[in-house]
Amino acid sequence: MKGIQIGIIGAGRIGRLHAENLTYRVKGAEVAAVADVFPDAAARCADEIGIPQATADPMEVIKNPAIDAVFICSSTDTHAPLIEQAAQAGKHIFCEKPIALDIPAIDHALETVEKAGVILQVGFQRRFDLNFRRARASIGEGKIGKPHILRITSRDPEPPPIEYVKVSGGIFLDMMIHDFDMARYLMGDEIEEVYATGAVLVDPKIGEAGDVDTAAVTLRFKSGAIGVIDNSRKAVYGYDQRVEVFGEKGMIVVSNPKPDTTVLSDTAGDHSSPLYHFFLDRYADSYIAEEEEFIAAVTQKKVPLVTGFDGKAAVVIGYAAKKSLAEGRPVKLSEIDPAF
Amino acid sequence: MKGIQIGIIGAGRIGRLHAENLTYRVKGAEVAAVADVFPDAAARCADEIGIPQATADPMEVIKNPAIDAVFICSSTDTHAPLIEQAAQAGKHIFCEKPIALDIPAIDHALETVEKAGVILQVGFQRRFDLNFRRARASIGEGKIGKPHILRITSRDPEPPPIEYVKVSGGIFLDMMIHDFDMARYLMGDEIEEVYATGAVLVDPKIGEAGDVDTAAVTLRFKSGAIGVIDNSRKAVYGYDQRVEVFGEKGMIVVSNPKPDTTVLSDTAGDHSSPLYHFFLDRYADSYIAEEEEFIAAVTQKKVPLVTGFDGKAAVVIGYAAKKSLAEGRPVKLSEIDPAF
Amino acid sequence: MKGIQIGIIGAGRIGRLHAENLTYRVKGAEVAAVADVFPDAAARCADEIGIPQATADPMEVIKNPAIDAVFICSSTDTHAPLIEQAAQAGKHIFCEKPIALDIPAIDHALETVEKAGVILQVGFQRRFDLNFRRARASIGEGKIGKPHILRITSRDPEPPPIEYVKVSGGIFLDMMIHDFDMARYLMGDEIEEVYATGAVLVDPKIGEAGDVDTAAVTLRFKSGAIGVIDNSRKAVYGYDQRVEVFGEKGMIVVSNPKPDTTVLSDTAGDHSSPLYHFFLDRYADSYIAEEEEFIAAVTQKKVPLVTGFDGKAAVVIGYAAKKSLAEGRPVKLSEIDPAF
Amino acid sequence: MKGIQIGIIGAGRIGRLHAENLTYRVKGAEVAAVADVFPDAAARCADEIGIPQATADPMEVIKNPAIDAVFICSSTDTHAPLIEQAAQAGKHIFCEKPIALDIPAIDHALETVEKAGVILQVGFQRRFDLNFRRARASIGEGKIGKPHILRITSRDPEPPPIEYVKVSGGIFLDMMIHDFDMARYLMGDEIEEVYATGAVLVDPKIGEAGDVDTAAVTLRFKSGAIGVIDNSRKAVYGYDQRVEVFGEKGMIVVSNPKPDTTVLSDTAGDHSSPLYHFFLDRYADSYIAEEEEFIAAVTQKKVPLVTGFDGKAAVVIGYAAKKSLAEGRPVKLSEIDPAF
Repeated sequence: MKGIQIGIIGAGRIGRLHAENLTYRVKGAEVAAVADVFPDAAARCADEIGIPQATADPMEVIKNPAIDAVFICSSTDTHAPLIEQAAQAGKHIFCEKPIALDIPAIDHALETVEKAGVILQVGFQRRFDLNFRRARASIGEGKIGKPHILRITSRDPEPPPIEYVKVSGGIFLDMMIHDFDMARYLMGDEIEEVYATGAVLVDPKIGEAGDVDTAAVTLRFKSGAIGVIDNSRKAVYGYDQRVEVFGEKGMIVVSNPKPDTTVLSDTAGDHSSPLYHFFLDRYADSYIAEEEEFIAAVTQKKVPLVTGFDGKAAVVIGYAAKKSLAEGRPVKLSEIDPAF
Repeated sequence: MKGIQIGIIGAGRIGRLHAENLTYRVKGAEVAAVADVFPDAAARCADEIGIPQATADPMEVIKNPAIDAVFICSSTDTHAPLIEQAAQAGKHIFCEKPIALDIPAIDHALETVEKAGVILQVGFQRRFDLNFRRARASIGEGKIGKPHILRITSRDPEPPPIEYVKVSGGIFLDMMIHDFDMARYLMGDEIEEVYATGAVLVDPKIGEAGDVDTAAVTLRFKSGAIGVIDNSRKAVYGYDQRVEVFGEKGMIVVSNPKPDTTVLSDTAGDHSSPLYHFFLDRYADSYIAEEEEFIAAVTQKKVPLVTGFDGKAAVVIGYAAKKSLAEGRPVKLSEIDPAF
Repeated sequence: MKGIQIGIIGAGRIGRLHAENLTYRVKGAEVAAVADVFPDAAARCADEIGIPQATADPMEVIKNPAIDAVFICSSTDTHAPLIEQAAQAGKHIFCEKPIALDIPAIDHALETVEKAGVILQVGFQRRFDLNFRRARASIGEGKIGKPHILRITSRDPEPPPIEYVKVSGGIFLDMMIHDFDMARYLMGDEIEEVYATGAVLVDPKIGEAGDVDTAAVTLRFKSGAIGVIDNSRKAVYGYDQRVEVFGEKGMIVVSNPKPDTTVLSDTAGDHSSPLYHFFLDRYADSYIAEEEEFIAAVTQKKVPLVTGFDGKAAVVIGYAAKKSLAEGRPVKLSEIDPAF
Repeated sequence: MKGIQIGIIGAGRIGRLHAENLTYRVKGAEVAAVADVFPDAAARCADEIGIPQATADPMEVIKNPAIDAVFICSSTDTHAPLIEQAAQAGKHIFCEKPIALDIPAIDHALETVEKAGVILQVGFQRRFDLNFRRARASIGEGKIGKPHILRITSRDPEPPPIEYVKVSGGIFLDMMIHDFDMARYLMGDEIEEVYATGAVLVDPKIGEAGDVDTAAVTLRFKSGAIGVIDNSRKAVYGYDQRVEVFGEKGMIVVSNPKPDTTVLSDTAGDHSSPLYHFFLDRYADSYIAEEEEFIAAVTQKKVPLVTGFDGKAAVVIGYAAKKSLAEGRPVKLSEIDPAF
């Protein structure tokens, strides 16, 4: 049986990863075409993975009648327009985060998707990590009772290039956005208000670019529960992502998985290996699981685990955090978007 | 050689603990007298531990010329007056936290101590816990470089009686006050501003008493570093106190010591024992170490690890947190006391 | 560039795994043919993975001039004859363990391989596990100094079918053989003498089949170091494989990797997830790494990490253990094969 | 109420520890006298702890009618004679291990105790460690079903002085004797046969003294269960004592408690503190618990957790191990003492 025919738009690091996974590791899918504004990148990707069609024009992929679904992995500013084109062409859509950095643009894209009746899944891959999924399952089953306190720590091994920082939308929309999504996912609850604090402690250039590199955000959920998230752009010990949900009947903690379990004991004590350094290593299995989810959603016509609304909500929270930091006060999400 | 002669004021749970430790476990000290407003309590304590003098009147202890130092373990409202009396009588003073819930009263007591030239140590016993001491030592030695982010979690196994909640000064002055002191101690830095959020999730009666039972506070240190503290009045899994300090060169984490290391593995997974439930068990060694510190400070005429100023600072931060929660905005410590 | 052309002999569970890995996950290799005595199994495997040739006759694979190397994954009794045929046909050989249960047959096969000048790698996949590799690397680098004591625990989640037990060669040649190889690998040393003890504690049928289901073996290495291995056919908590090497300067411990890091804390304590249950899950990455090693050995004409001699040594140790158990005394390897 | 009156015989390190614990930490006991062949040691001990009577002659303690019980903490060769004298004087007896290195002498002492009807507890303090007690309790409650495999690791931080090694009875009677007792305690089962292997890897002088410094012993229990114990005289990383009991329904593991929980993460990985180095630190609480057990046994006229028979059994196993090592074959306990 022929699988779902996929077109990849954007043959950069993440686009290639999806292309390889869909080709080698995900059942029920075939990559039929790849587009990239750099035609060489598209051609090389097609050649190495064995994808029949390569093009510089994403519309060639979107209009290809043999294609069932597209993976939008191009630069952020192209996401919303491509979502709309793909939706109008009746293609199902997997889109990397964020949908857009402009909320009206997100709304417009989501409306187009809604009208077209296609499936849209947004690339919050962390939801598919086995650790977080099991934590969410335990919470959903009532193992800790009603959640009271959420703690999330996310720290990158090193800051992105300063040129990227400038166009990234800032730490809340670029980095903590994943934690905002994780917060909503784990708690099964909506955030009402945020208070953000931030500092430039890692690299003064990040400050000159108008951003912070260290941040903590307090969340108030509609249920009354409280959350705290901290981020740093530079953890020398590796890629650090932990969550903890504390509730009336107990607590669930997810610590960092490590590449190996080896412990060396010597006169100085016990020593174990560093964390994963690279997010693609840390979340290798999560990417496969999110792709499988998307293929299953398309095949079974079901709502995927990460919807367009989830994609929007994280952006709204990010803007609230940004406003909170700028104004030095707690900000309600409804100040950003009255729908929240 | 005869040791430092100690008078215990207050023969409740904590006064008795000091009396027993000073008698049996701390070298260089002897408990010469015990006072309690309930004469029976004083007499029973004296009898069981073998203390020569028991009285209902703390002034009898303070005025006893054979006594070198007093441990003030009576109710909070008596702390400041007793400090003043003891200082004027030339006694060195160990005082349980808080010095007072009234900042001018603290100031007055500290001035009296200053003038009298006696030693005052405040009962933040957690600083003496081996784990936290080692974390502080590592930070002081530069093992993690400049600190960027502090995280503290403190959760009690169950709320105090509601009658106590009403007079406690609230969660920030009663419970989180220990974490404020720990924050200053670990970071070797002063706090500039706090933002507090809180909720009543454990017991509505706590809300009716005008307090919250779940809280998170964001701290901004003078160095620019950021801290987050969370508290709950009820952690069903036990007495939970963890800290983490993240810096430019690494991270120090203190997790909960456990009573035993036994792990049972069965078809459901791996199971280990619960945490200590009772703070006197968790901090048994810390109490002894703080008593040893006090005896050493008196003997060597040195500044103890926890000073009167430390006692005041934690109260000031507590009031700032309280104001922040009430007004829904970040509050600078200088709004509470211009000296900060 | 066309990769190494592989023929798979035996399309059972492990043959299929190699076929899938070589097709999807290992660079530089292509599976060109698959043989199985059950023609349907070969055909289904070829069809599902996209292998051009399927046959019931392994000689068709071995004689196919387009094929560079074979993976021998058929039943144990066929290993030695197929190694000889493949070697004489000039094919490089990957063979699942054991080479044979008959030492003269192993010797004859290894001589044939030697004469033919082809590469032979034996399927001790555990050597390729990242944990054990890192332990071996630390030992090789002298991190623990001279090794003194080795401990290995290997326990299966459940016994194999009793029909398999009967033809398996017994626990030492079927199960502990992996640990014997691990012992030689980690210690970088040869075993001189073994003492085995065993019991039937899991299933009396295993005893009726002439085998034990629980065993401990003491090893004496040529260096004087001591090793202890324990095995059980049934660990209800999952697939348990740990090693520890203790030396003059320290100790390396490899504990079990777990599928997830989630910990639930409740009134009963802390609970984490069970171990992997299935060896193919536990060693998924090790199979890929051993295949990559084989492809690299063939491509670069180098000696692979697991040689034919390694394959023989583990069998010799297994027979020594068997004899030790039967005779209730320590047995030197030289009693089994004078070359040891 | 006046407590049990204790006489301490032997004011060395362990005698002093008992004297201090009984004075300061154990309720219901008073140390009334201390004897040591070095009169200064007895006097200093009495002076510093406040013991009324000090003497060079143990018989003065034993014959003191005010004394209820003695702690025999003198050199090994004096244990059996002192037990007999004390028993004949009607004193209850706590005796450090071993009772004697001569089995007829043990038998004679035990008979004398039996006739006198006094209580005898032998100093296997590890049974009182909370970890091992909880492991034993879980096994007793059936949490792991029928035990199949026992693993014990005991490694000292450094070898004793060579002069001590010469008179110690050897590694099996001096060091592994604790593990033999632990094996019987945890398994609730008797050992039938042992096989010992040993090597001189730490210090050739230990070999010259006729002993080994590294050893592994395989145990066969009467139930059919199998045990393995390994010992080293020198673990550079500290005092290492772990046990594991594996059974039909699960496994109990006791790992080493550590002085602190601090973990430093840096670019090289995660680092935690070394183990306790000194057995008196590691087992500080166990000594108190064994003293409490003895006081309770005397007060309640009950059989203590460690009996004279337990004291003998460990010696018998030690001799069997010694014989096994010497003769290179498994040795049944009944070869040492027909009663086993």
